[in-house]
Amino acid sequence: MQLQMDATELSAFLAAEFPQVAHDFRIIDVAPMRVSVALRVQDHHLRPGGTVSGPSMFALADVSIYLAVLAMIGPQGLAVTTNCAIDFMRKPAAGADLICVARLLKLGRVLAVGDALIHSEGLSDPVARAGITYSIPPKPMI
Amino acid sequence: MQLQMDATELSAFLAAEFPQVAHDFRIIDVAPMRVSVALRVQDHHLRPGGTVSGPSMFALADVSIYLAVLAMIGPQGLAVTTNCAIDFMRKPAAGADLICVARLLKLGRVLAVGDALIHSEGLSDPVARAGITYSIPPKPMI
Amino acid sequence: MQLQMDATELSAFLAAEFPQVAHDFRIIDVAPMRVSVALRVQDHHLRPGGTVSGPSMFALADVSIYLAVLAMIGPQGLAVTTNCAIDFMRKPAAGADLICVARLLKLGRVLAVGDALIHSEGLSDPVARAGITYSIPPKPMI
Amino acid sequence: MQLQMDATELSAFLAAEFPQVAHDFRIIDVAPMRVSVALRVQDHHLRPGGTVSGPSMFALADVSIYLAVLAMIGPQGLAVTTNCAIDFMRKPAAGADLICVARLLKLGRVLAVGDALIHSEGLSDPVARAGITYSIPPKPMI
Repeated sequence: MQLQMDATELSAFLAAEFPQVAHDFRIIDVAPMRVSVALRVQDHHLRPGGTVSGPSMFALADVSIYLAVLAMIGPQGLAVTTNCAIDFMRKPAAGADLICVARLLKLGRVLAVGDALIHSEGLSDPVARAGITYSIPPKPMI
Repeated sequence: MQLQMDATELSAFLAAEFPQVAHDFRIIDVAPMRVSVALRVQDHHLRPGGTVSGPSMFALADVSIYLAVLAMIGPQGLAVTTNCAIDFMRKPAAGADLICVARLLKLGRVLAVGDALIHSEGLSDPVARAGITYSIPPKPMI
Repeated sequence: MQLQMDATELSAFLAAEFPQVAHDFRIIDVAPMRVSVALRVQDHHLRPGGTVSGPSMFALADVSIYLAVLAMIGPQGLAVTTNCAIDFMRKPAAGADLICVARLLKLGRVLAVGDALIHSEGLSDPVARAGITYSIPPKPMI
Repeated sequence: MQLQMDATELSAFLAAEFPQVAHDFRIIDVAPMRVSVALRVQDHHLRPGGTVSGPSMFALADVSIYLAVLAMIGPQGLAVTTNCAIDFMRKPAAGADLICVARLLKLGRVLAVGDALIHSEGLSDPVARAGITYSIPPKPMI
């Protein structure tokens, strides 16, 4: 399978469809069944002590898998997360962006399943890992 | 076991320790091993179409279990989420707050496990369900 | 919605379609969106020390949600588990059967989501909790 | 960190401590923070149609992470699974063993977290993926 959208197209889609959060994310790399996305850590992502909040890491994993799906199927805003299992393993490094490497393990007709591994930029130990399922809406029959 | 903190004390703790997000949540009810918490839905929680975002629902489930733990063990800021599995089942109703009913199924020495059921205020169908594990730091030996 | 299959019909279906494992389970109660099922604990379910194995508890949660789905949609052998998140919270009591109370939180056209709470017979503390998603095959168009 | 147990020692430990199931598994490879284990598929693992059952895949993922932990910390029978999130993505190939590649993402003092990817021998598409947490008992203070 080949890419339906590249990094530039995915960034434009995100900015158009999700203007509230698009600026939080930077798409680093897009390949078939695989994307890398950074969370540009800002004050509203932080908890006391300067560590990135759980919901912010969840959001990063979720958007990364979403982008990996869109890269393969094209700009369909209606794919929705049905399930996420996330393990928080280490405290993110203070003052560093978070990098998520997400890959699709299954891209079916109705369900896509991926996993996401998050680490602090510049460090190799993973801070969180997630498995995420997206439900893909049926294509309209024209 | 009896409550170490009531709704007023939990609200004050949240406001003091998590000032960025405390105003998003309203503690409705606290009982042994059980809390109800509302997410006051605001613009920054919404996705296009007016539906509450996944990360916002995750945050609601997470803070609810956290408050259920604190209610039982007292104000210990250091409990951390180690795992969350969440199912998104329905689109939340537009214009309604979300209500989370959280209960602790286990409150051990090092791990607490709870589940959380979220519904739109005024509707009974659940929009999301989560199982969450918290790691509880050892008590300092004085 | 009303029941398409009662406890007797579900037991007969299990015996016919899953003869290898049907004798491990006893259906206690069936209601709309809800079933109770017992695992008749036998030697092959045990780990050293006489405790029921994790895979056996997984199997109990999985079959319970499956039966809850079948009770609502009728005898369709093709529903498949797509996801399970399970927390193991306590050691089951030795020499006691396990009871699973399973309820459906969503019964959609393509996905069903349920949760399952397992306890040792005669004790109230839960030993395990699971959230499970089933994919429901499309009905053949005749 | 270096290995405390190699494949031969892990196999012997499994045979001694879990005689009921040890013959189901074949340890293929052991490296720091990583093991590969095969499920020797037999009749009692199968569902109608010749496909491997969900609980059997769960058992394979669970034992693989367990062995990865033991390889690092030595023969401690008391580590227990506290959580597993598993996605079932494809039907395993009939007549083929299942191979699980498991790696530890965190090996802490009290919790170990790993993920496991299962495929049918000879095929590359994953049939299941799991994230698993083990609780590690404190070392006795002598």
